[in-house]
Amino acid sequence: MKYRLSELAAFLKRKFIGKDVEISGCNTLMDAKEGEISFLANPKYAKYLKSTKAGAVILEPSYASDEKNCIISDNPYLDFAKVVSLFAKEQGEFSGVSELSHIHEDAEIAEDVVIYPYVYIGPRAKIGKKTRIFPGVYIGEDVFIGDECTIYPNVVIMGGCEIGNRVILHPGVVIGADGFGFAMGDEGREKFPQIGKVVIEDEVEIGANSTVDRAALGETKIGKGTKIDNQVQIGHNVKIGANSVIVAQVGVAGSTNIGNNVILAGQVGIVGHINIADGVIIGAKSGVPKDIKKKGIYSGIPIMEHSRFLRASSVIQKLPEIYKEFKQLKNKLDLLEKQLKRNQDG
Amino acid sequence: MKYRLSELAAFLKRKFIGKDVEISGCNTLMDAKEGEISFLANPKYAKYLKSTKAGAVILEPSYASDEKNCIISDNPYLDFAKVVSLFAKEQGEFSGVSELSHIHEDAEIAEDVVIYPYVYIGPRAKIGKKTRIFPGVYIGEDVFIGDECTIYPNVVIMGGCEIGNRVILHPGVVIGADGFGFAMGDEGREKFPQIGKVVIEDEVEIGANSTVDRAALGETKIGKGTKIDNQVQIGHNVKIGANSVIVAQVGVAGSTNIGNNVILAGQVGIVGHINIADGVIIGAKSGVPKDIKKKGIYSGIPIMEHSRFLRASSVIQKLPEIYKEFKQLKNKLDLLEKQLKRNQDG
Amino acid sequence: MKYRLSELAAFLKRKFIGKDVEISGCNTLMDAKEGEISFLANPKYAKYLKSTKAGAVILEPSYASDEKNCIISDNPYLDFAKVVSLFAKEQGEFSGVSELSHIHEDAEIAEDVVIYPYVYIGPRAKIGKKTRIFPGVYIGEDVFIGDECTIYPNVVIMGGCEIGNRVILHPGVVIGADGFGFAMGDEGREKFPQIGKVVIEDEVEIGANSTVDRAALGETKIGKGTKIDNQVQIGHNVKIGANSVIVAQVGVAGSTNIGNNVILAGQVGIVGHINIADGVIIGAKSGVPKDIKKKGIYSGIPIMEHSRFLRASSVIQKLPEIYKEFKQLKNKLDLLEKQLKRNQDG
Repeated sequence: MKYRLSELAAFLKRKFIGKDVEISGCNTLMDAKEGEISFLANPKYAKYLKSTKAGAVILEPSYASDEKNCIISDNPYLDFAKVVSLFAKEQGEFSGVSELSHIHEDAEIAEDVVIYPYVYIGPRAKIGKKTRIFPGVYIGEDVFIGDECTIYPNVVIMGGCEIGNRVILHPGVVIGADGFGFAMGDEGREKFPQIGKVVIEDEVEIGANSTVDRAALGETKIGKGTKIDNQVQIGHNVKIGANSVIVAQVGVAGSTNIGNNVILAGQVGIVGHINIADGVIIGAKSGVPKDIKKKGIYSGIPIMEHSRFLRASSVIQKLPEIYKEFKQLKNKLDLLEKQLKRNQDG
Repeated sequence: MKYRLSELAAFLKRKFIGKDVEISGCNTLMDAKEGEISFLANPKYAKYLKSTKAGAVILEPSYASDEKNCIISDNPYLDFAKVVSLFAKEQGEFSGVSELSHIHEDAEIAEDVVIYPYVYIGPRAKIGKKTRIFPGVYIGEDVFIGDECTIYPNVVIMGGCEIGNRVILHPGVVIGADGFGFAMGDEGREKFPQIGKVVIEDEVEIGANSTVDRAALGETKIGKGTKIDNQVQIGHNVKIGANSVIVAQVGVAGSTNIGNNVILAGQVGIVGHINIADGVIIGAKSGVPKDIKKKGIYSGIPIMEHSRFLRASSVIQKLPEIYKEFKQLKNKLDLLEKQLKRNQDG
Repeated sequence: MKYRLSELAAFLKRKFIGKDVEISGCNTLMDAKEGEISFLANPKYAKYLKSTKAGAVILEPSYASDEKNCIISDNPYLDFAKVVSLFAKEQGEFSGVSELSHIHEDAEIAEDVVIYPYVYIGPRAKIGKKTRIFPGVYIGEDVFIGDECTIYPNVVIMGGCEIGNRVILHPGVVIGADGFGFAMGDEGREKFPQIGKVVIEDEVEIGANSTVDRAALGETKIGKGTKIDNQVQIGHNVKIGANSVIVAQVGVAGSTNIGNNVILAGQVGIVGHINIADGVIIGAKSGVPKDIKKKGIYSGIPIMEHSRFLRASSVIQKLPEIYKEFKQLKNKLDLLEKQLKRNQDG
């Protein structure tokens, strides 16, 4: 694939400066070769603008100059993403429905669905049009999957779960395994049967080997447009709002409600049965033990306001010296006290 | 499925109060509809007792009243779990042994076993009666699986491992992958061959995408009735006792021994080669660096007694202010000291 | 398999002391039976040397005695690993290429490759000689896999990724799923297409259910001889050097560079876009927020030098008492100050 710079500018509805060069690929400022287009979004990388071999650069007006072919944009990263999507090749080349798959006769498969070999689709499952299902996927009975979804290899969707449109489930994702619930009986723990389901709304993306448990009763829900990274664990009956971002290895315990536009950085843990307000941001590795009612940035185990966390952390680093000084201070004060007493007595 | 309230009470061997209504499902107090039964176990939810639309509620004697149809129980959560199990539908509707599976001729398959398509069973493996094996499961050579187990899709059980009776392995679980062991040689790390196995006792349940490594020598062992959540990592040669509970994303490093009735909350990490006593509870996200010999609740990185952790955490939150005051105190003391000296000299 | 002690000594190019007994297995000092060989590497276990039933022990010269048959070694652990490898049986007994697998006609399969049933190999993929591919593996288009690799069950290698020679991928590993990248658009997050790849060099081993994301542009790279444990997450565009060790449940965020011979202990988290120098060791559960330029051992959230972390942690444990004393100190000082003032005024 090749495009003229003018064609890319027109596609983005942006202006371009310089020669109308031919572009055949995309790359970073540092690695770009002559025929490739690049972008500048982070000022940290502005220093590479002079030396880059990129044929053209997408950048903000303030960085534009006659020295470089460029497309002027007020959102260079987004525009670059759009250009990359022109060059991107979808994963997988299989088409049609493989005879090596096992599709129950009571399943409904819409038109233009792709089903690779070794896919199991249970009774009464419904697969929407243009959805692609890679090898090794298990789709249980009564599962609903919308249109234009991509279900990558070895994904498991247990019975009764519902997946919206344009959802992407990366390899190894497990949707609808039993939640972790037991009642204490006389002879040890007895399983609380998990009879709810998982509902995943449109445009959700879930990363490799992440797990979303089915509800005990009712549903576990991932809201529209929410993006979940790899190896994330979502407990039963959790509700996550729209357009939230959950980074790798986060764990959210059962029955917790997370709002819209929330960001949970990597390895965060959230206890069960709490509420996180819209727009909250939690720093990496933090532990959230109770409700967060106010939008803001929080960090720490347990969390506090992020700015406080940074200051507290800097004191923690000095604790060995501070504690030494503290003990000296105590001695000094004792001495002073004695001295004062002596003075008074004397 | 429908039951009279009197039938449910008889099944539970409990008394009921009110009308002998018909029950066709189970739900929470908040979400229950007229024909559904609910329960009250957590006093926090007692406020919903008046407004619930549930046809009946399982509750403790102190909450019973004439206003509501109810079953009187001294363990409402357990009894509700039992009722839910009456209504619960097992996952999966496949029966028999699929011809699309690959079963080695030297494998032994007991009666009433269910084997879905795309299952691989190696030589000399033995599968106990009524065990169900979902699609995409790999069972290596010489694996032993007991009776009435459920092996969900894409589980992997490597050669030589042993699984007891009524064990549930959720999707993506890996049993018996090599432990992480290397010896430093002249040209980098050399693999220490992992020739031990994994033994999983009766009534164990292991959550989606969890991993239990095979022993270097000897065995890794999960004791009877222990419940493990999703994405838990159990290192080689770890021994876990009976009826313990291991919540999501916990990691236990190699050769550690964990007792009976231990609870490890989410994202806990335990170093290798240590011992954790029976009945110990570790709070979420904690790090355990050495033996715990005494039953109790512990938290923190590294752990301390939980009550101490709570108090220390509350001081940590105040550290920025405390440190400021501390510096003021030092100055004040210096001033006082000088003043006193001046007084004495004067 | 059985060997004389003299044969094992010759194999290791070491001397032996005692009777030339027959050895038929390997075990720990504690568990070894008469016909088994054991080893002593950790002085902690020297106490078992007297009581062990092992037929022979590999140990350092200082532990050698006439009382025990032994092989004298200056690296007993490495030598024991070599002996164990004599007795170790490879996982899996399948040979040849299964007709139940799906191999694209444009894929190139070298000689002596083993392909189990239910393997999917896409167009233009190349598999090197003696590589073994277990059931349920997905190998996308244009994937390159070198010689003598072991690809365990249910591994997924997405299109275009490259795997070197003698690489071991344990069950459930996902190589080349999309990195986590989105650009903020007017109607929510838009996917930044991930068009790069993953390159895994020779002798790398990756543990069960770990994930290595494909680069947005360019490549994610794991260097020669690096060993990665279970449930590790490597973000897009991360570069890891040679002979590094990454323990279970570590997460490395996108575009971070990790040097050679680095050790990341369990559950460590590393932010994106930073550099970790060669030889750095990070303690378990630590959080690394910025570059580490100097070789050393670091721990904590955020990290500090490990020795400082230990001292700071010991102060944290005492914070409740210290804070109490601190408040007493303040009062005492206030009193003294008043008294002094009174003295002066008086």
